[in-house]
Amino acid sequence: MEIFDRLESEVRSYCRNWPVVFNEARGSYIYDESGRAYLDFFAGAGSLNYGHNNPELKTRLIDYIVSDSVVHSLDAYSAAKREFLTAFEEILLAPRRLDYKVQFPGPAGNNAVEAALKLARKYTGRETVISFTNGFHGMTLGALAVTGNSMKRGGAGVPLSHTATMPFDNYLDGQTPDFLWLRTLLEDSGSGLDKPAAVIVETVQGEGGINAASAEWLRGLEALCREYGILLIVDDIQMGCGRTGPFFSFEEAGITPDIVTLSKSISGYGLPLALTLFRRELDVWEPGEHNGTFRGFNPAFATGAAALRAFWTDDELEKSTLAKGEMIASRLTDIAEDAAEAGAHVRGRGMARGLAFERPGAAKAVAAEAFKRGLLLETSGPEDEVAKLLPPLTTATEDLERGLDIIAESTRAAVKTPQPA
Amino acid sequence: MEIFDRLESEVRSYCRNWPVVFNEARGSYIYDESGRAYLDFFAGAGSLNYGHNNPELKTRLIDYIVSDSVVHSLDAYSAAKREFLTAFEEILLAPRRLDYKVQFPGPAGNNAVEAALKLARKYTGRETVISFTNGFHGMTLGALAVTGNSMKRGGAGVPLSHTATMPFDNYLDGQTPDFLWLRTLLEDSGSGLDKPAAVIVETVQGEGGINAASAEWLRGLEALCREYGILLIVDDIQMGCGRTGPFFSFEEAGITPDIVTLSKSISGYGLPLALTLFRRELDVWEPGEHNGTFRGFNPAFATGAAALRAFWTDDELEKSTLAKGEMIASRLTDIAEDAAEAGAHVRGRGMARGLAFERPGAAKAVAAEAFKRGLLLETSGPEDEVAKLLPPLTTATEDLERGLDIIAESTRAAVKTPQPA
Amino acid sequence: MEIFDRLESEVRSYCRNWPVVFNEARGSYIYDESGRAYLDFFAGAGSLNYGHNNPELKTRLIDYIVSDSVVHSLDAYSAAKREFLTAFEEILLAPRRLDYKVQFPGPAGNNAVEAALKLARKYTGRETVISFTNGFHGMTLGALAVTGNSMKRGGAGVPLSHTATMPFDNYLDGQTPDFLWLRTLLEDSGSGLDKPAAVIVETVQGEGGINAASAEWLRGLEALCREYGILLIVDDIQMGCGRTGPFFSFEEAGITPDIVTLSKSISGYGLPLALTLFRRELDVWEPGEHNGTFRGFNPAFATGAAALRAFWTDDELEKSTLAKGEMIASRLTDIAEDAAEAGAHVRGRGMARGLAFERPGAAKAVAAEAFKRGLLLETSGPEDEVAKLLPPLTTATEDLERGLDIIAESTRAAVKTPQPA
Amino acid sequence: MEIFDRLESEVRSYCRNWPVVFNEARGSYIYDESGRAYLDFFAGAGSLNYGHNNPELKTRLIDYIVSDSVVHSLDAYSAAKREFLTAFEEILLAPRRLDYKVQFPGPAGNNAVEAALKLARKYTGRETVISFTNGFHGMTLGALAVTGNSMKRGGAGVPLSHTATMPFDNYLDGQTPDFLWLRTLLEDSGSGLDKPAAVIVETVQGEGGINAASAEWLRGLEALCREYGILLIVDDIQMGCGRTGPFFSFEEAGITPDIVTLSKSISGYGLPLALTLFRRELDVWEPGEHNGTFRGFNPAFATGAAALRAFWTDDELEKSTLAKGEMIASRLTDIAEDAAEAGAHVRGRGMARGLAFERPGAAKAVAAEAFKRGLLLETSGPEDEVAKLLPPLTTATEDLERGLDIIAESTRAAVKTPQPA
Repeated sequence: MEIFDRLESEVRSYCRNWPVVFNEARGSYIYDESGRAYLDFFAGAGSLNYGHNNPELKTRLIDYIVSDSVVHSLDAYSAAKREFLTAFEEILLAPRRLDYKVQFPGPAGNNAVEAALKLARKYTGRETVISFTNGFHGMTLGALAVTGNSMKRGGAGVPLSHTATMPFDNYLDGQTPDFLWLRTLLEDSGSGLDKPAAVIVETVQGEGGINAASAEWLRGLEALCREYGILLIVDDIQMGCGRTGPFFSFEEAGITPDIVTLSKSISGYGLPLALTLFRRELDVWEPGEHNGTFRGFNPAFATGAAALRAFWTDDELEKSTLAKGEMIASRLTDIAEDAAEAGAHVRGRGMARGLAFERPGAAKAVAAEAFKRGLLLETSGPEDEVAKLLPPLTTATEDLERGLDIIAESTRAAVKTPQPA
Repeated sequence: MEIFDRLESEVRSYCRNWPVVFNEARGSYIYDESGRAYLDFFAGAGSLNYGHNNPELKTRLIDYIVSDSVVHSLDAYSAAKREFLTAFEEILLAPRRLDYKVQFPGPAGNNAVEAALKLARKYTGRETVISFTNGFHGMTLGALAVTGNSMKRGGAGVPLSHTATMPFDNYLDGQTPDFLWLRTLLEDSGSGLDKPAAVIVETVQGEGGINAASAEWLRGLEALCREYGILLIVDDIQMGCGRTGPFFSFEEAGITPDIVTLSKSISGYGLPLALTLFRRELDVWEPGEHNGTFRGFNPAFATGAAALRAFWTDDELEKSTLAKGEMIASRLTDIAEDAAEAGAHVRGRGMARGLAFERPGAAKAVAAEAFKRGLLLETSGPEDEVAKLLPPLTTATEDLERGLDIIAESTRAAVKTPQPA
Repeated sequence: MEIFDRLESEVRSYCRNWPVVFNEARGSYIYDESGRAYLDFFAGAGSLNYGHNNPELKTRLIDYIVSDSVVHSLDAYSAAKREFLTAFEEILLAPRRLDYKVQFPGPAGNNAVEAALKLARKYTGRETVISFTNGFHGMTLGALAVTGNSMKRGGAGVPLSHTATMPFDNYLDGQTPDFLWLRTLLEDSGSGLDKPAAVIVETVQGEGGINAASAEWLRGLEALCREYGILLIVDDIQMGCGRTGPFFSFEEAGITPDIVTLSKSISGYGLPLALTLFRRELDVWEPGEHNGTFRGFNPAFATGAAALRAFWTDDELEKSTLAKGEMIASRLTDIAEDAAEAGAHVRGRGMARGLAFERPGAAKAVAAEAFKRGLLLETSGPEDEVAKLLPPLTTATEDLERGLDIIAESTRAAVKTPQPA
Repeated sequence: MEIFDRLESEVRSYCRNWPVVFNEARGSYIYDESGRAYLDFFAGAGSLNYGHNNPELKTRLIDYIVSDSVVHSLDAYSAAKREFLTAFEEILLAPRRLDYKVQFPGPAGNNAVEAALKLARKYTGRETVISFTNGFHGMTLGALAVTGNSMKRGGAGVPLSHTATMPFDNYLDGQTPDFLWLRTLLEDSGSGLDKPAAVIVETVQGEGGINAASAEWLRGLEALCREYGILLIVDDIQMGCGRTGPFFSFEEAGITPDIVTLSKSISGYGLPLALTLFRRELDVWEPGEHNGTFRGFNPAFATGAAALRAFWTDDELEKSTLAKGEMIASRLTDIAEDAAEAGAHVRGRGMARGLAFERPGAAKAVAAEAFKRGLLLETSGPEDEVAKLLPPLTTATEDLERGLDIIAESTRAAVKTPQPA
């Protein structure tokens, strides 16, 4: 591993907590070079909702490559793109009566966010975008300006502008009425808040600490946006593609965002792909006004279409995700009770769950113990105070149980042992 | 194709000039669904320097996928990443005595640019970055601020800040001494130019119109940067990976940038991958200060390493590229002479060549004629005044000749026929 | 008056409500060309705390001019400046144990604010400044960015940056704990609020609608600033110089700002003069780093020193202001009760008082009625919903009573008569 | 003087070169407390074009104050304002056929500049303003962004945005054609220069080192602005009011700016007053959109009107200024020849003249020697490389001669004596 140390930038991060060299992966398991298996409750930070190297998608991917189908064609038309758009329309948009246009803004989530912000500003002619405490939207300069994390913001090297941060659901004391602050600012022409182009929100904040907004709060936000003529952007990069149960994480609340961003699991196989969806009338782009080299990675279209056909033509996956999510929540609740001394509590929705600790360092310690026991578990939140569970949605119940057993043991080990703060 | 119209955003562009559905691709040829072959002098805007679906790389890619090697592992260590770094060090860095650290900043060129700008600003504690007229660096907010194109800049929806534009080589009247303006600004404490963190430059501007900087100008720029303590960033996303002959396009000039961005052809197979390289001492990143989901796409590491081993362990490709480049230039010169009435002239270096026209609309017309004749040819430059040739470096001489024959015919057809301005 | 219409910009405002040509002024009265007297409860928006053309100061001013004392000397040393600084130290700073340095940043309040913001940013190395809803600090670009009014902000023509707006005292529902939002943002490293350089606050917001912060809130703000290492700027331009009773409006709360701005009544005679005061250790300016032509207007130094000697060597004015303030509040309360149907209520502190109306247009109507009856009364607040009383502190009790009688009548006339919204 | 040291901020500057306490002033002389007279070739940096305490204006000022005419009335109509506007129209605008509206934007030059920039951006809907190398326009954030001096810019504490710096006349090598760079940027849609709202220029840069633009260059700039629909702002704060001969410094070139700023000598007596003039159709301000406390200082209106009547109803002053200017230039040329070893040369126009030195420190040394000999002489330019002569226009020829004798002696003393760099 010496070459990583010597050659790779200090910016690398996950490898620091999991100092092994990964090699193979199947379903919910990833293997290091020594052949040791790790149960993967990290799942590429939500990029592997259908597990590693899903056999059905793998077959499609190999077929695609073997047949010399076109891999790279920028934003020219390709059969694979048509296949993807057709599936996207039939399986996702039409049944949900979503009249969205689709933009392929580049291969990564940040491209989807940048395109969303640009379009919202262009359409409204306004500059300010409202973001929420502990929101996370990406590292490029536009996306970073709506991201909360101070360490990451500090990396910008320039002041981040044209944004205002607002309290996410349940952020303050639990007594302040929802949107009291934002609504008051909008109503008061002397408030100092310039009229916003848009708000950008995650329904469950993944990087921010598995903070789940309630359906009521999301409906309130949509109503507020409609009332004041502000565009509602839901960043569904981490929570979309079924992570919380339904394909779009905002379905449960019954809202219809003006703009939606998707990436991570949209290709189904961990291939880079991102989408920006928006109401038809918002499509005021000039041809080529936002471009980029990897806007449509054809193998990702192929696996993405296959994934939609494999998992989203009925409601089985949704139901199973909700059921598994309940099971995880229940087990975590027990674990949290057991670790009450460290201020443990449970967060989340669907199969995006968090075990949060008030005791500084506890979540990091739990994750470290879990790794020793063969489980990959990320931490999140501004102070890494949450052990974050994002297992593949396809994880077998017995593997979920096994992982939760490890988390129970790891929590005990981490919490009962004296820890450095 | 009706679904593209109905569902895909108006922002799409290349498909407008090539209204067919591509399906398969091999080497320098791409095929539409009807089976018609197109000779590809576009090559994914420089992403396919080794052609479509190169058999050697294809084998490596299929092996990788078939064996269930890990596809997505964020920035954890993987065997594929080690393979790539090892090849990168042995084949590229060590022989060139480049002591660079390597960052994987995300899957796209704009991620590499954003990371470069952030790092330069963080390292120097300054904000201003110098860019050049007709430079192109990407669509995210940081990269867009150093991009010249006014239509694309207008898409930002906010003013673009912290940058200053300077004349690229040979931009003004041909008599103004190089760097007279920039040097005077830097020397004069009353000039109004805040001390820059960095300059960002392409050695040959691809999107800007195949404007090639001379080696002398590049050396002058490096000297100026050293003199004033400004970091030199070479954006080698389009011109790197051998496009101009040597692997790095700046090698010919004998300069050593402080920071280098790579993407496009670095995976060798059209897979999304990007790198930011920088002098070891610039590696002041905090762990995780710049992150992202698709920072290390393992199949791209596998094909990227294979490409380095296949093409860069000796100087054959470099020599062939230079020879083919001369051949192209010579043929284009004849074509330009033939089209003198439209103000045609030739630009470029290596296998990045342009046929520029003073007559408005001529280059677009040439590209349209070429498409009719089965050749993909992009236009570039602020007014699309340049027909841009970026054939795969591996294109056989007879195919190059064929393509140039088509260009000759197309130019004749476009220039001799009355065109709407 | 036709020349005003023809030649003066549409930006003019007060003249629109008082369409007469003023000519002479003495004490609390101002006269138009026809000789009509107006009782002046506007007092130059707080610039005439000692009334118009105070005889004692007038004598000093005439002596100064008659003797050919130097009028304009930029920031060279002058006898008048020494006289002012000496009085300022002896009468104001020393008794209050305020160890402030004094900067003369230009003739207007906005200069004092701009200097305060620049110094706070330079000293801390941070960019963000916290301002409060309905704060007003001036029209230059830096001051405008911390000003709440949307119409005035819109005049900037560029987005206003590097600031964040927070709720002023009693802004929300009256139940949200003070500073809950700001404190939470500061404590949470993921909040999206970049660490601020400073907060800038008025103890009573004049332009914002005579919103008076409680002493407790101000102490809480000071404590918060100390806790988080943020500089506290009190903009005392309108409320300083005794408007609320003590010389500095923050004295009542017992707080010590890091930086204080003064202007308006500091010359005592309506002459342009402004000061920025700051704790000695904050004086990190380079010589000449902030300059300007009218930084020290000597006649204003002369009258300013005379005003300090005339009014601030004992506590008579303070006591009288407090007493008169109580009297005004009491009378206004009766008037408000009488106008309960228009949602009238009373605001303010000392001799800065407001009669606020929930009914749209009512305050404007009251001011218009008052003008008819010979009383100058401004409106303020984001929707001009407050009739604002800033009579000279030296106004005789019988004149106060007379003015309040007019306000009572005007309110009755305005509220009982149907008004267009 | 100890109180200045103890109490006044380190930002003070002129007092450092002239460490005496000034007391009285008459005409071209200013006196310190010991009674020592100094011939004043500084004249309040151009604020005292008619000398100190001009008797005619003094009489008007004393009358104004003695009669209890209104001193402070914000932007209400006053007899003094009418008097000023009437004189301004009759004496200045009408004879020159300038159809300008007049705004009183605040008491200082920076207010006039901020208003000009805001209006230009509002009117055009664009953000970028072009400024010139070594331009100086003020210390507030908007004005500072168009100011060249790096030390002063550094005081902003935030990056200065929405501007681009261009070469002033004769800035580069003397061979680059005028406006080659700017014109090329404007014509090239890929240049990276966003379409500007306006350019802001001084006809002679005072603070920047007495750099005089040629009439031809100014006409070229006006033509360029017209051609590209960019507003032309002439900042005539230091060079207006007759400093270069005619009232407006741009008259000689025969151009008509869209917007003009005036301040400094406009009151005639060193009283704070500033004006922004603009073509009638640009008057798109909302009432009150730009406001401020000292927008119309009535005593300054009174003296300002008197000054116009005293000096500008015929062309005597203009002629005398031009003649005196020639005389100064001629004497300075001799002095410069005598100091050729220090690289001395002469700059300027009318009675704004500079003696520039290539030898570092020479100009400062000359000014110091002059002070010893009883002459106030400022330095200017980014490195203080220019001894700057701005004597009152009313200075008697014998006093001019005397001052120039002192400068000759001082130059000799400074240049012949070894100086620390």
